[in-house]
Amino acid sequence: MKKNFTIIDNGTVTTPKGFLAQGVYAGIKRKRNDLGVLYSVNPASAAGVYTLNVVQAAPLKLTKQCLKQTGKLQAIVVNSGNANACTGVEGDKNAKIMQELVAQGLDIPNEYVGVASTGVIGQQLPMDCVRKGIELALMDLSENGGTGFSESILTTDTCDKNLAVQVEIDGVTISIGGAAKGSGMIHPNMATMLGFITTDADIEPGLLQQLLSDVTDQTFNMITVDGDTSTNDMVLVMANGYSGVKLDTNHPQWEVFKEAFNYVSEYLAKTIARDGEGATKLIEVTVKKAKSKEQASIIAKSVIGSSLVKSAVFGADANWGRIVCAAGYSGADFDPDKIEVYLMGTLIFQNGMGITVDEDVLQEKMKDEFVPIELVLHDGEAQARAWGCDLTYDYVRINASYRS
Amino acid sequence: MKKNFTIIDNGTVTTPKGFLAQGVYAGIKRKRNDLGVLYSVNPASAAGVYTLNVVQAAPLKLTKQCLKQTGKLQAIVVNSGNANACTGVEGDKNAKIMQELVAQGLDIPNEYVGVASTGVIGQQLPMDCVRKGIELALMDLSENGGTGFSESILTTDTCDKNLAVQVEIDGVTISIGGAAKGSGMIHPNMATMLGFITTDADIEPGLLQQLLSDVTDQTFNMITVDGDTSTNDMVLVMANGYSGVKLDTNHPQWEVFKEAFNYVSEYLAKTIARDGEGATKLIEVTVKKAKSKEQASIIAKSVIGSSLVKSAVFGADANWGRIVCAAGYSGADFDPDKIEVYLMGTLIFQNGMGITVDEDVLQEKMKDEFVPIELVLHDGEAQARAWGCDLTYDYVRINASYRS
Repeated sequence: MKKNFTIIDNGTVTTPKGFLAQGVYAGIKRKRNDLGVLYSVNPASAAGVYTLNVVQAAPLKLTKQCLKQTGKLQAIVVNSGNANACTGVEGDKNAKIMQELVAQGLDIPNEYVGVASTGVIGQQLPMDCVRKGIELALMDLSENGGTGFSESILTTDTCDKNLAVQVEIDGVTISIGGAAKGSGMIHPNMATMLGFITTDADIEPGLLQQLLSDVTDQTFNMITVDGDTSTNDMVLVMANGYSGVKLDTNHPQWEVFKEAFNYVSEYLAKTIARDGEGATKLIEVTVKKAKSKEQASIIAKSVIGSSLVKSAVFGADANWGRIVCAAGYSGADFDPDKIEVYLMGTLIFQNGMGITVDEDVLQEKMKDEFVPIELVLHDGEAQARAWGCDLTYDYVRINASYRS
Repeated sequence: MKKNFTIIDNGTVTTPKGFLAQGVYAGIKRKRNDLGVLYSVNPASAAGVYTLNVVQAAPLKLTKQCLKQTGKLQAIVVNSGNANACTGVEGDKNAKIMQELVAQGLDIPNEYVGVASTGVIGQQLPMDCVRKGIELALMDLSENGGTGFSESILTTDTCDKNLAVQVEIDGVTISIGGAAKGSGMIHPNMATMLGFITTDADIEPGLLQQLLSDVTDQTFNMITVDGDTSTNDMVLVMANGYSGVKLDTNHPQWEVFKEAFNYVSEYLAKTIARDGEGATKLIEVTVKKAKSKEQASIIAKSVIGSSLVKSAVFGADANWGRIVCAAGYSGADFDPDKIEVYLMGTLIFQNGMGITVDEDVLQEKMKDEFVPIELVLHDGEAQARAWGCDLTYDYVRINASYRS
């Protein structure tokens, strides 16, 4: 399928016009950069999606509340190394101080500053470090700061996650950029996952929220690493209108924009899944010909979340029994005698039974870094897709000793 | 709390009067015994609970159907090494043949024979081996065959799972015996788990079903190893009335019997959880002072199912953040600022924040094989308890190469 957008080499959140960013070392973590600021030269329409965990971190509560009131953001400050979650009244105060420090430094209203944190739960932020970090980052905001920003938000991630794409609309180049962090605890409905998307299109806040919610349901909410969802997950989007192009659902190229926006989100989500703690492979589960989108999603998430499927993929074992079994206990109703299952494009299950295949050939194929699994239900026309990673020795090693 | 029952040394499913059993080597597996028969000298009231997986194995479908019609069983035949699941029409036929062979050998109606299988999914049963095994087992049925029976149903289990208790009712000794197999894939709502309970009490089938369903909800359905539920799980109970004591809910000692029955189920369930694949510890999560039993169960199951909690327990890491987080994403509503969390009996979380404890002391305590976690919600008077095991390197090793 021809794409209606262009992927930009080394594109980041500062590829869209009017965005500056920086990441610095504040001393919250032992070594790597740990504080980032993203800034729009003018107040931007903004929207957010948040964790469904009833335990919510202080910065998330603050950002959610401000954004609900104003529908706008002009800056976002993020620290890694400390989640500022389960930190009580002092934690709330510290999130507020982070917001105020950035607002004062940039001379903008407090409510226009989003705050995000990620890292260890239950410890107070070292505010001296945070203060110093904010000061440093604000001094150095730059159009080239996108990569630095994306590096500063990482925790157990092994690589930074960046992308920007461009579309031509009304003869003008519109850009969409994104940065994310993920790794452990990633699961549908958000989980120690942060995502930040920027665009220089002009979109009013209500529509931007609807766009983000729709796209998140099919991207960030369809990934899983270990089924745990965190207290801090959040995806924020800023649309600053710097391009001068106003977009709404009546615009003839709205779908083109949406496709590009979806691509950025899906790319970031898949990159997060692939970079799950200890992962060696990206698994993609596609459920086709389902009765409803909901049925397809439930089954896709159940298969991608199965520890037995994930272990089998790690071991390059073409174990269709575990795939069918995980679909079976998903809670979605279907007829197991009607479905087909494909692994690496090879039909392995049909008419309620396994199909004899050359297991050596299939096992060889499964050593690839990308392992697609497809279930065809023959129950309708709906489809859903989910992404995850294999379960490895390293996952256990990392999580048996995360804090030490 | 004083128990109203006595635990019998080396008690098994044949401790209750009128039950014979045997386990033999039929050649389905490479080495260990793999076929067992349990027999009651008279037709027994019977009841069953079954996996909720929409993919159901042939023997399970057959047993469920027969038991629904008759409410009685006189024998149960079980093989390990092959699940007879996803085996199509031939699989259905083979389950039926197993039933018929046992019925003919014992001269009882086909419908009085329950059939269960456990092992690899998707391969046809080697019927020559099965035939020979059934013949051998029937020739050797014995009051001392309980242990042999329990050994023959194991798969990746590292130990057999047996218990019998006795209660005095109306001056007569009533026995309850049980055998189970578990290991990988154990999860609430049943999972490659088989349980067989026998008693010489006289209880009509409807009440026996109600008893089994109630008790299973609080025992077998409250354990998890890896969240996967299988196609073959089933718990069957036979009450042959051999003691001559008739029990119903109006009997003054019904609750005494129920307590003993619950103890057998809980013991087997916990033993299954402790023997989860690669496990080194039994984790017990108790949720107290909940608004409802349902709220308590949902939270307990979410915490016990968290890969991050399980990894932390493996690493003896007193990581209350992961416990609170898993409670938070359970889907049950509660106020995180009101709850208390205890680990190994030590208060570690209160007022929405962690409590400073001597981590070295707590870590030392956590090296124990039994790790209790308690959440007090202060939201009502309901309670639930769930059991699971830690997530270890060995879990990954076993499941990355199960079939090879």
